[in-house]
Amino acid sequence: MSDKHYLALSGGVGGAKLAHGLAQVLAPEQLTIAVNVGDDFEHLGLPIWPDLDTVLYTLAGIANPDQGWGRADESWQVLDELKQLAGPSWFLLGDKDIALHLARRHLLDQGLDASTVAQSLAKRLGIHQRVLPVSNDPLRTLVETDEGWLEFQRYFVGRRAEPTLQSLQFKGAQQAQLAPGVREALTHPGLAGVILCPSNPYLSIMPMLAVAELKERLQTLTVPVVAVSPIVAGMALKGPAAKIMAELGVEPKANTIAELYHDFVDLTLVDNADAELVAGDRRCLATATVMKTVDDRKALARQCLAEIERLQQC
Amino acid sequence: MSDKHYLALSGGVGGAKLAHGLAQVLAPEQLTIAVNVGDDFEHLGLPIWPDLDTVLYTLAGIANPDQGWGRADESWQVLDELKQLAGPSWFLLGDKDIALHLARRHLLDQGLDASTVAQSLAKRLGIHQRVLPVSNDPLRTLVETDEGWLEFQRYFVGRRAEPTLQSLQFKGAQQAQLAPGVREALTHPGLAGVILCPSNPYLSIMPMLAVAELKERLQTLTVPVVAVSPIVAGMALKGPAAKIMAELGVEPKANTIAELYHDFVDLTLVDNADAELVAGDRRCLATATVMKTVDDRKALARQCLAEIERLQQC
Repeated sequence: MSDKHYLALSGGVGGAKLAHGLAQVLAPEQLTIAVNVGDDFEHLGLPIWPDLDTVLYTLAGIANPDQGWGRADESWQVLDELKQLAGPSWFLLGDKDIALHLARRHLLDQGLDASTVAQSLAKRLGIHQRVLPVSNDPLRTLVETDEGWLEFQRYFVGRRAEPTLQSLQFKGAQQAQLAPGVREALTHPGLAGVILCPSNPYLSIMPMLAVAELKERLQTLTVPVVAVSPIVAGMALKGPAAKIMAELGVEPKANTIAELYHDFVDLTLVDNADAELVAGDRRCLATATVMKTVDDRKALARQCLAEIERLQQC
Repeated sequence: MSDKHYLALSGGVGGAKLAHGLAQVLAPEQLTIAVNVGDDFEHLGLPIWPDLDTVLYTLAGIANPDQGWGRADESWQVLDELKQLAGPSWFLLGDKDIALHLARRHLLDQGLDASTVAQSLAKRLGIHQRVLPVSNDPLRTLVETDEGWLEFQRYFVGRRAEPTLQSLQFKGAQQAQLAPGVREALTHPGLAGVILCPSNPYLSIMPMLAVAELKERLQTLTVPVVAVSPIVAGMALKGPAAKIMAELGVEPKANTIAELYHDFVDLTLVDNADAELVAGDRRCLATATVMKTVDDRKALARQCLAEIERLQQC
């Protein structure tokens, strides 16, 4: 299996867990993880890449286990003082997290592209897989709500995703090129399959698919593409995916995920809780998708790889 | 005395102490403190204004008492993690200090000029005096050494002022306009005098005098200008002033300070340790200039004001 290569597409918390599982069961050189950049923004001069950081922290085993972002054993000296100074404190920045953003700023200031910066930070955290932004170019999710257009983090963190979502725009997507390292994974002679991790389809996966080359290559790929539904029993395990789908007039159900990705995903793994819902739907397979432990992550990763192998033999 | 106004020119630590003394003995509306900007730089995306911050921290009573920079009761979570990440750690940034830089970044990002930003930060720290950068425009000290030209902080902090200094350049000085608030102080109908605080003449005072309008106004001022020598018994109390003066071929002696400023300073206060040195020199007056306590700062401030009053009556 060691000459086989896999590409995983991931957003934040749920996606990062499966990416971690894949990293546990594959050799480092077998895995490329492409990460959503739509949430990225600059705040107080700090370049903040929330999904990439969550993937890095999760793979390094230093993610906060209780929240969907940030580091374990974090301290809050800077933010506490920033509050004292009446500075903006709506976006929670821990001290260790700030250090990563400052290290990234330093690398960016040297003229390095986003992929090189991501790889450099990954190595410093002891991560040997390729963890790459889907694009080195700016691509920013904008959210149209009943309160008007909002920058993503203003909506997601500043307003806790409370405003009703009406539409999404991925600013810069038309100009954004696929990151060379992601293209390399997709054209890798040993590419065995692609895994869409269980991330928010609208806020994490679609901004990635908005990079035209990625969607085109996925649509014409000859190897299997397997998705894992982030929706379990009509709810998102974390985050506002179900709320957003309902607001956009899409039923927040596991089989809807298969429908959303129908033009390039061969199989969607849904949770056993949704087994009845997908009974008879050959595009879906019910299994245990909820990852509470590292063993859960590894088991789901193994199943993704097994399904890819099975589909390849069809 | 309450309708009298005073302008103090200050660099970092020594200057900040006298500025603090003046702030203690004058009403807030009587004092404008213009601060050197030549040391300012951007580091890891953070706008760092070392001299202004030292003045702010000193006036707010939160300066580190043992070092010439930074805050008391500081923590180092961010820098510790930055070291873990192999990020640049040559410039020491405490957590509370970082918070101030982030708050400043936020204000600058709103398009506010440097004076407005400085005043806003001062207010948040409970400071009611006008503490202003000498110019709102970029003006950066560059240092020519036996190792070539260095940016100021690379020389001062990165190389601990060890390379032999050959010459100085104040980049941007020709274009830099005097900050409007400093001009207001100099044209204040109640202006009673100007105090040059005991700061490094080459690294703190000269970058300020490089703003042409400041030097011109000081040279043509009708009210007294009093300086306090930062050199005591041939040495600087803090920092490399004596080393630098020697490298530039200037005798590091208290009366040299009077010589340097001869075209606009009416009286230079030197320490009693140098009383013999300045005996018979009417431009100099020996007194106690070493400020170990807050009372020392207030006493020296009162003497500066008394000398201004005496000179005015001459």
